[in-house]
Amino acid sequence: MLTLFLIGIGCGDPEQLTRAATRAINVADLVLIPRKGSAKSDLADLRRTICTDVLTNKTTRIAEFDLPVRDAAESDYRKGVDDWHDAVAAVWSQTIASHLGDEGKVALLIWGDPSLYDSSLRIARRLNPLPDIEVVPGITSIQALCAAHALPLNDIGEPFLVTTGRRLREGGWPQGVDTVVVMLDGGTAFQSLDPAGLHIWWGAYLGMPDQIIISGALAEAGPRIVALRQEARERHGWIMDSYILKRRP
Amino acid sequence: MLTLFLIGIGCGDPEQLTRAATRAINVADLVLIPRKGSAKSDLADLRRTICTDVLTNKTTRIAEFDLPVRDAAESDYRKGVDDWHDAVAAVWSQTIASHLGDEGKVALLIWGDPSLYDSSLRIARRLNPLPDIEVVPGITSIQALCAAHALPLNDIGEPFLVTTGRRLREGGWPQGVDTVVVMLDGGTAFQSLDPAGLHIWWGAYLGMPDQIIISGALAEAGPRIVALRQEARERHGWIMDSYILKRRP
Repeated sequence: MLTLFLIGIGCGDPEQLTRAATRAINVADLVLIPRKGSAKSDLADLRRTICTDVLTNKTTRIAEFDLPVRDAAESDYRKGVDDWHDAVAAVWSQTIASHLGDEGKVALLIWGDPSLYDSSLRIARRLNPLPDIEVVPGITSIQALCAAHALPLNDIGEPFLVTTGRRLREGGWPQGVDTVVVMLDGGTAFQSLDPAGLHIWWGAYLGMPDQIIISGALAEAGPRIVALRQEARERHGWIMDSYILKRRP
Repeated sequence: MLTLFLIGIGCGDPEQLTRAATRAINVADLVLIPRKGSAKSDLADLRRTICTDVLTNKTTRIAEFDLPVRDAAESDYRKGVDDWHDAVAAVWSQTIASHLGDEGKVALLIWGDPSLYDSSLRIARRLNPLPDIEVVPGITSIQALCAAHALPLNDIGEPFLVTTGRRLREGGWPQGVDTVVVMLDGGTAFQSLDPAGLHIWWGAYLGMPDQIIISGALAEAGPRIVALRQEARERHGWIMDSYILKRRP
């Protein structure tokens, strides 16, 4: 039998690693490290750093593999994602088969937490043979963002919505909530909102040495974020950011 | 100057502790451990266990204190919480003053993550003198719940709502989402919903040795959860549980 450990490693700071993550990495026979291309090589580097740092089991092997690229030309978003998951599952299966055969413990280090805006659980269910799946939670960028701002995410007894940049842009401020967390925003969807009464807590490269955060009334902080984000993206070649919006009457 | 570290320690399993949490506990001059009364003594015990387990700094002192009880007779929920935060802040201030004076590093170990349905950040801002506040994120029960069920929290590119049992009972299924996380439910608010098309992933004592989980169609799993929850609550004297509901057309 194969066991697949999907291990949340936090969002950039190796200090966010849990004891359970360290333990799971060390019981693995094989650690898979995806290469995503040069733009996000910092992320593959972090996975290598963590392995070097915490791996004390001399028999654990590390295998790097090239992640397939999603077909951005596919007009049906769902179908594009679906095809990509199939392609990734095929590469995982091949890499596992060539290094381990059909028996042993495989670990994948997952950015953030495997249950939050991550595909690994869905891809794992497409593997052949189907492994046992063990999930190790990790600190997410939402948590790192709140920690950096010392911000309580929810108001007392109140709900909050976690959504995407695309949804916010298309649907405007969601009904029934005064707190919205925005993930996966390739741009600055907050610019599509009327800023009156809104506050923003924004952060990029959270948990990493280059972490930057800005907060304030959206009308005032929004333009500062747009400018800083553009500048940081050009300097790094990539950016990962997220933000929290609160409506304050 | 005082620095206050609010340290997320996860939701029951000491293996969820991050390296940053261990480090923060060990730089503290004083660790405060609240006693909440016998019913939830397991929780104070976990904090003691973690201190014993990770504390290598011989100069760090540990101080236990009795947490004030919230006035359940106060009809205004907000005012009740507000008064209670004032009372807790007063006890923190006294305990810190008597052990440290007005200079040093104080650590509080927070169940889950300090930014999620936790009062510590709000209480800390009422301290006198006002300390510098450093937040260390910790694994939440939502993450432990998803990990236990190997469940992706969000559907692909879709939003989710995190809310309370009271809100769900009063407002029914929230608009605009197909995934709802329910926290702080003292009962079984899911019983107020029409179960048709709904699935539930439930867990109690998450991350602890007594962890129990149930999942399935709400119509079928709901009654099993109600019965098991009642039985477990009587056996332990307390229960902490949370659940995720998904609408599947």
